[in-house]
Amino acid sequence: MEEKELEMLRHSCSHVLAKAVNKIFADAKNAIGPAIEDGFYYDFDIKESITPEFFGKIEKEMKKIIAQNQEFKKVVVSRQQALEMFHDNIFKLDLITNLPEDEEVSLYYLGEDWYDLCRGPHVASTKELRNFAFKINRVSGAYWRGDEKNKMLQRVYVYGFENDEALKEHIAKIEDALKRDHNKLGRELELFTTVDSVGQGLPLLLPKGAKIVQLLQRFVEDEEEKRGWQLTKTPLMAKSDLYKISGHWDHYKEGMFVLGDEEKDREVFALRPMTCPFQYQAYLNKSRSYKDLPIRYDETSTLFRNESSGEMHGLIRVRQFTISEGHLMCTPEQLEDEFKGCLELCIYMLKTLGLYEDASYRFSQWDPENREKYIGTEEQWNEAQSIMGKILDNLAIPYKIGIGEAAFYGPKLDIQIKNVWGKEDTLITIQIDQMLAEKFGMEYTDKDGLKKRPYIIHRTSIGCYERTLAYLIEKYAGAFPLWLAPVQLKILNINDNVLDYANDVYKKLRENGFRVELDDRNEKVGKKIREAQLQKVPYMIVLGEQEKENNTICVRSRTQGDLGSQNLDDFIKELIIERETKKRF
Amino acid sequence: MEEKELEMLRHSCSHVLAKAVNKIFADAKNAIGPAIEDGFYYDFDIKESITPEFFGKIEKEMKKIIAQNQEFKKVVVSRQQALEMFHDNIFKLDLITNLPEDEEVSLYYLGEDWYDLCRGPHVASTKELRNFAFKINRVSGAYWRGDEKNKMLQRVYVYGFENDEALKEHIAKIEDALKRDHNKLGRELELFTTVDSVGQGLPLLLPKGAKIVQLLQRFVEDEEEKRGWQLTKTPLMAKSDLYKISGHWDHYKEGMFVLGDEEKDREVFALRPMTCPFQYQAYLNKSRSYKDLPIRYDETSTLFRNESSGEMHGLIRVRQFTISEGHLMCTPEQLEDEFKGCLELCIYMLKTLGLYEDASYRFSQWDPENREKYIGTEEQWNEAQSIMGKILDNLAIPYKIGIGEAAFYGPKLDIQIKNVWGKEDTLITIQIDQMLAEKFGMEYTDKDGLKKRPYIIHRTSIGCYERTLAYLIEKYAGAFPLWLAPVQLKILNINDNVLDYANDVYKKLRENGFRVELDDRNEKVGKKIREAQLQKVPYMIVLGEQEKENNTICVRSRTQGDLGSQNLDDFIKELIIERETKKRF
Repeated sequence: MEEKELEMLRHSCSHVLAKAVNKIFADAKNAIGPAIEDGFYYDFDIKESITPEFFGKIEKEMKKIIAQNQEFKKVVVSRQQALEMFHDNIFKLDLITNLPEDEEVSLYYLGEDWYDLCRGPHVASTKELRNFAFKINRVSGAYWRGDEKNKMLQRVYVYGFENDEALKEHIAKIEDALKRDHNKLGRELELFTTVDSVGQGLPLLLPKGAKIVQLLQRFVEDEEEKRGWQLTKTPLMAKSDLYKISGHWDHYKEGMFVLGDEEKDREVFALRPMTCPFQYQAYLNKSRSYKDLPIRYDETSTLFRNESSGEMHGLIRVRQFTISEGHLMCTPEQLEDEFKGCLELCIYMLKTLGLYEDASYRFSQWDPENREKYIGTEEQWNEAQSIMGKILDNLAIPYKIGIGEAAFYGPKLDIQIKNVWGKEDTLITIQIDQMLAEKFGMEYTDKDGLKKRPYIIHRTSIGCYERTLAYLIEKYAGAFPLWLAPVQLKILNINDNVLDYANDVYKKLRENGFRVELDDRNEKVGKKIREAQLQKVPYMIVLGEQEKENNTICVRSRTQGDLGSQNLDDFIKELIIERETKKRF
Repeated sequence: MEEKELEMLRHSCSHVLAKAVNKIFADAKNAIGPAIEDGFYYDFDIKESITPEFFGKIEKEMKKIIAQNQEFKKVVVSRQQALEMFHDNIFKLDLITNLPEDEEVSLYYLGEDWYDLCRGPHVASTKELRNFAFKINRVSGAYWRGDEKNKMLQRVYVYGFENDEALKEHIAKIEDALKRDHNKLGRELELFTTVDSVGQGLPLLLPKGAKIVQLLQRFVEDEEEKRGWQLTKTPLMAKSDLYKISGHWDHYKEGMFVLGDEEKDREVFALRPMTCPFQYQAYLNKSRSYKDLPIRYDETSTLFRNESSGEMHGLIRVRQFTISEGHLMCTPEQLEDEFKGCLELCIYMLKTLGLYEDASYRFSQWDPENREKYIGTEEQWNEAQSIMGKILDNLAIPYKIGIGEAAFYGPKLDIQIKNVWGKEDTLITIQIDQMLAEKFGMEYTDKDGLKKRPYIIHRTSIGCYERTLAYLIEKYAGAFPLWLAPVQLKILNINDNVLDYANDVYKKLRENGFRVELDDRNEKVGKKIREAQLQKVPYMIVLGEQEKENNTICVRSRTQGDLGSQNLDDFIKELIIERETKKRF
């Protein structure tokens, strides 16, 4: 079905909703009722609260109206007529008064006995809504015209789709997303929390979340070291002087947290939004020759972005985050190979984490219409983008182009990913920069004895750890692969007679480096299993008299259920392989 | 020799210096010349620079004066006489004019032909300086009266001791300290740097320094995990609201970096100076029972202190640092055992690093005369200090008491350490806190069903990583134990014929997890050895035709020199033991 047609069905059904609500709530004043992405809503002013108990009644009334094949009929009226017809509805009066002078004023009748101020278009009759499938989702408060100085209305959200199948599919998707939503599940699993007095966009990682981030950080640092990257550890803030050289002060200041006042204080500091100008100082620490290049610096780097309050979301949109940020200085001849190396690193990370299939590429370019957002000349931008375009084409990267999405100093390859609600964000970025080396006076002595400027690649390799954790929670619905699971095994003893044996098993697993918990409460083992399952622990080891006698263990997998009786040493060998290979089921 | 007597010798010798300088530089105007900790200085106004070339000439002239047994003679004069006698010296005129009304004005003659304005006392004759040993150290600029609006003078620093032996000992100590000084050596070894545009107190760790800190962090995190500590990762800043609850806003604000202005901004943030109020939020995330206690949270935590510019020093006094900070919540019955556990952890760390023998203990108490610096009542302080005192006595800790050195919320056991220049700082701290649990509403349900406040132990376990690195540099003069050395081995090939063999050895060492570099430059092996030795690399592997033929390696240790021909596999086995046991030579 065409989007336009579906929109007309949805909007027509919003009139059906209003008519039904008017019948049930005599005092209801109708405000507005547009189509939206997954259905429609209508805002009402009603004394009584439209609680979920009313949903069935409203839906029944709507179905009755539809079954009656009521007609939608457009009537054009004068402004004066309109004001009279809606004299008892301040919202409609407000709308009529604010209509542009030259605009036609129209009503739509639904049946003979009900009309609404509306521009249309609508279907001819509710007959056309026969196959349309809808379900009231929820009611929430909404200010008239979105202004908190105005009256708070009740907004009835309704899912609406062309047929039952599409509606069911959508609801199933929503239910799945709700189950995976990191902002809900991550709190339930005690991975993170937020606290009012700390502030928005500043999540606290609890021990289980911090453990996953620690494992990810070590994995990334070690893998990068293997690939020739050298770790630095540079300050999280600097004087404004540094950002004036880099261009951040002119092009990024509103995104930074500034300490002090330039007019009053001798020194003004800012928290860093990026690592680049700090890592360049490591390069500048001594003179460099072409033989030293490429130089690859990485850092487990905490960054700060002064995001506005409305933009915060769980672990995905935050004001402080930690990321493996790297800067690579190389000669022009090395650029393509090094870019490829960076991309291979990212792909390796994404594949290991299981996020590769969800990622897409964006070639982020400058916007020549907004030149004040960037440093450098048009020639420099054309050159940098053409070099990057050639590299991407040589590597056969299937990118889309994002105009105006470049960094202020150069073009980017962004690896994009969507959360469970379909919102896309950048997870990883690789950038080519010809300009900052000049600003910082970075150079190397070439074979011919001449001083030259290095190319710089800015790159991340997995997303910032907070955001990556969010996507991992959503990807795995909290059931992390063994190597990342904060608790990898739970030992459940049947009774206290086998507690000594349970402790032996516990000790042996700890000695082999596993994160294991012993649930020795006096509870039925069925309850212990259910709780471990809810906590999404990969393996449960159930120990009873028989296991103790035979010196075996009874293993349960959270995904496959009972795996039967096993020898502990053999099981540990398998576990070690699963951990070392970072297996994803 | 008594301190007073030594001071008189030093001050007397400063007159000898001035007389000698006056003879050599006819235009010299004398300012002041006091005794100092390791000798004396004298400030002069002279057109010509007193460069080191003059030092010998000045010392010779001084010795001549001393050999002549010249007498020091005190003469009391009237203020008017004094003004006339020093009419051509603005510094002395300034001094005379500013003398208190009722003070006697005196001169000291040295011999018949030279005098200086002076309060004394002095030795009777330079005869008493016969055994006194001195040596000019350096000349540096100093403003008259320390005020930068005044004239810049030349300050001649002289080491001065009772005899040759004491002088030699002092100079040897200085030379050793200079060789070890982390602020010099740490830069030479490319461990860290500082950059003007970044700012004071914000050192940048270069790859070799960052590697050591990474190794230390992982060692600490893993050791703490073994001992039952759970890692958290909480934000580096928070709204002022949080610090108002904790008391930091009232008692620590001038030590914090504040973002925003309380009068103007809706939200004011501050960078955290401590982790406590953040980790408490993890405790507060759910309700706790006595069965859950003790709860031990640690964090690799970056903190910010708004130190004033004059206090900065290398890696020891900085504005931003990272530390393993922990908070332990327990019942009163658990307090002593848990305190002991924290102390054992610190001692284990200090012993492993080799800093244990340099540490001393301070029991830091509140200052009842300065009650506005602290939260809580006198009763609470007396109780907390008495509990801590008992624990320290039970553990037989040989502490000294530091009045006024407590945290604003409780007493501390501080583990103190001195740098190469003798300046003492706190490396590690363990604190007992009865007060913050109340402020944050932290509680647990006890056996009897009642809600109770937990005791909190605040603790670090090694010093902040920057400061610990500084002490390690000074302790080992940059020659780190194998497990911490940023480069552990260097392979030095005799010529290109054995390059393939050198690469094989390199690969095998890398596979075994060693940080190894191959110096394959076309340089004499003697030069390669000298350079590796300067870089303080623990082991050098020299490879020539013979080694290649016999499939052996020739090993040099930076401390023991040539260790002869060895089998690579055997050597690797020994190396692994040295690394895993964290051996210190």
